[in-house]
Amino acid sequence: MTASLEGTLAAVRPADEPAMAAAREHQARLTKPAGSLGALEELSVRLAGLAGVNPPPLPTPATVAVFAGDHGVHAQGVSPWPQEVTAQMVANFVAGGAVVNAFARQAGADVMVVDVGVAIPLHGGATLLDANVRRGTRDMTVEPALTREEALAAVEVGLGVAGALVDNGAKCLLTGDMGIANTTPAAALIAAFTGLAPAEVTGRGTGIDDATLDHKVEVVGRALALHRPDKADPLSVLAAVGGLEHAALTGFILGAAARRVPVIIDGVIAASAALAAAAFAPDAVAAMVAGHRSAEPGATVALAHLGLEPLLDLGMRLGEGSGAVLALPVVEAAVRVLHEVATFDSAGVSEK
Amino acid sequence: MTASLEGTLAAVRPADEPAMAAAREHQARLTKPAGSLGALEELSVRLAGLAGVNPPPLPTPATVAVFAGDHGVHAQGVSPWPQEVTAQMVANFVAGGAVVNAFARQAGADVMVVDVGVAIPLHGGATLLDANVRRGTRDMTVEPALTREEALAAVEVGLGVAGALVDNGAKCLLTGDMGIANTTPAAALIAAFTGLAPAEVTGRGTGIDDATLDHKVEVVGRALALHRPDKADPLSVLAAVGGLEHAALTGFILGAAARRVPVIIDGVIAASAALAAAAFAPDAVAAMVAGHRSAEPGATVALAHLGLEPLLDLGMRLGEGSGAVLALPVVEAAVRVLHEVATFDSAGVSEK
Repeated sequence: MTASLEGTLAAVRPADEPAMAAAREHQARLTKPAGSLGALEELSVRLAGLAGVNPPPLPTPATVAVFAGDHGVHAQGVSPWPQEVTAQMVANFVAGGAVVNAFARQAGADVMVVDVGVAIPLHGGATLLDANVRRGTRDMTVEPALTREEALAAVEVGLGVAGALVDNGAKCLLTGDMGIANTTPAAALIAAFTGLAPAEVTGRGTGIDDATLDHKVEVVGRALALHRPDKADPLSVLAAVGGLEHAALTGFILGAAARRVPVIIDGVIAASAALAAAAFAPDAVAAMVAGHRSAEPGATVALAHLGLEPLLDLGMRLGEGSGAVLALPVVEAAVRVLHEVATFDSAGVSEK
Repeated sequence: MTASLEGTLAAVRPADEPAMAAAREHQARLTKPAGSLGALEELSVRLAGLAGVNPPPLPTPATVAVFAGDHGVHAQGVSPWPQEVTAQMVANFVAGGAVVNAFARQAGADVMVVDVGVAIPLHGGATLLDANVRRGTRDMTVEPALTREEALAAVEVGLGVAGALVDNGAKCLLTGDMGIANTTPAAALIAAFTGLAPAEVTGRGTGIDDATLDHKVEVVGRALALHRPDKADPLSVLAAVGGLEHAALTGFILGAAARRVPVIIDGVIAASAALAAAAFAPDAVAAMVAGHRSAEPGATVALAHLGLEPLLDLGMRLGEGSGAVLALPVVEAAVRVLHEVATFDSAGVSEK
C-alpha cells in the first residue's frame, strides 16, 4: 500500500462546473419549493461538482478510517488521561465496543482501524491495519514532533488507505482518530495554518479544567515559538507540531480528493488535517464535507478558514469519527433527492 | 379507529425520574469522556424518562404520518401555489415520489398518508387513509375555520392514527403535513399559544416575497383580532384559527405521549400542533423530540416556548415530515449508545 504524495497532488482538480449547473437545474425541477431543502441542496450541487456528473453517486458503501497515534507532548501534562488509553481504545474499536462502532453499524458504514503511531505494540484482528511509522511523536515543546521523512511516511499511509478503500468500492470516506493528547497538536496545526493565536484555537479536549486549559494554551504557544512553522511548506508544519494521525488524515483527505470521492470531516483533529490538505492542494476542499461542529473552538475556526459549514451541531467532542458517521445519512439524503424525487412534470404537480 | 381525547389526556404522565437517573449513570460508565456526546446524551436521558426504563427501546420501527388538509384562508392570497397542489402532492406521496418518501426509504421508516381535510376527493392506494373530516377549513378571516366538533373530530383522527401505529409495533412516530397555505394557520396558532405578535411568528412558507409576507402577517392579525382565541381552551383555538392537519397532528402528538412513544416534531406546522398538545397536557412535552430548526420563524418560537432544542439546523422549510425523518438516525444513535457501547470496566479502558 504505497502512494506518492506528488502524484496525488497533481490529480486534485477543481469542481466540475457543468455538473454543478446540471444539479442546480435538476433541483429546480423537483416537487418542492425552490430552496426548501436548505443546506442539502447546496451539498448535492457540491457533490455533483466533485463527481463530475449529476446526479452524483450515493455515498455508499462508506468506510470510516480511524487513525491512531500517541504524542510526546503528553509528557507536558496537557491531558488527564494516561497515554495507555490510546491502545486500549484501539482494542475497543477492534472489538466493536466504541461509539464509532455503534454509529457505523447503524449507518451501514465499515470501520477500519489504522495504527499509524501508537506507542505500544498492538495485536489487533483483521480490522486493525499495522502501519506504525513511529511509536508516538517526540515532545514538540522540545524538538520537532517528527522528522520530515516520518511525516511524509504518515501522509503516505493515509494516501494508501484512501486509495485502497476506493479501489475496493468505497463511495465515501470518513475521517476518524484516536490519540490521547491529540487535540494539542491539532491546536498547534490550526494556529500555524490560520495565523490565529493559541488561545483562539485551543480547547478543553476531553474536558480539562481552567488551569489545565491555560497550561495547554501555553504549551501550544511554546511549541509554535520554538519551531516557527512555515505554512507554505505544509509537510514541515506537520513534522514540527503535528501528530502521526494528523499527518495520516492529511493524506487520507488528499487521497479522497484525488479520487473525487467525498470525505466527511469529523472533529478538530480532522479539521486540522483538512487545513494541511488544503495547504498542499487548495482544490482538495471540493471533496470535503464538514460532518459536524465540534465543541472544540479550533474546529470551528478551521472549518471557517476552509469555507465549510458543518451539517450537524450537537455539542459533540468525542472524536473517533463519531460526528462524521452521524452526518453520513444527511449526506446520503442530500444525494438521494437527486436520484429519487419526482419532478413537477413527472408527478403532474402544478407550479406556482 | 376511534379514540377519546379525555382518556388520552388522563394517560399523559411526567417523565420517569429513576429511569432518567439510571440513564445518566449509565452514560458516565461508557468508554468516552463525560459529556462528549453533547445533545445526544441528554436526549438519551429524556427518552429513558419517557419509556420509564434504561436503556429505552430503539426508535424502530418508525412511521411518519403525513396529515393533509386544505385551507379556506387560501382565498386571501397568502400563497402563490394553487390549492390543487395539496391533492397533487398527496398523490405524489402515495406514489413514493416526494422528498419525504426518499428520506423515509433511506431511514427505514414507513410513510402513512392521511386525508384529514383535503378539498378534493382523493382516490389513493393502500397507503392513503381516508379520514376526511371536512373538505378544507373555512376562511378564518371571515368565520371560525372549524366548528368545535370538527376540530375534535380531527384531533381524534390523529389520536386514532397514533394508537393504531403503536398497536402495530411502531416505537417512534414522526409528524408530517401537507396543505397549501397551512403556514398561515400555523402562525395564528403559535401567536395564540405564545402571545407573540403575528409579525414575530409569520414566515415566508414556500418562499413568498416581501409584499405577500406583509399581507400574510396582516391576515394572521385579522383572524386573531376577530376570534380572540383563549389558549386555556385549546380546542377552541384549533377551531378558530387552526387547520384540520394541525388538529390531527395535535391528537397524533398526544396519542404518542399517552403511549409513551417518542414523537419527532418536524417543522412549523408540527410545532404549532405541539403547542396545542402541550396546552391540552403539559406533560406531553416529555414525548416530543424537535427534529430540526425550520427556517420558518414561528417554529423556533414554538420550540423555545416548549423548552425544546432542535437536533438539526439545515435551513430546511419543506414540511411533509422531511426534517423529522432526517433526524430519525440521530435519535436512533442517541439510544443505540446505551444499548451497544462498552463500559470502562467491560472494555478494560483506564479512566482519567
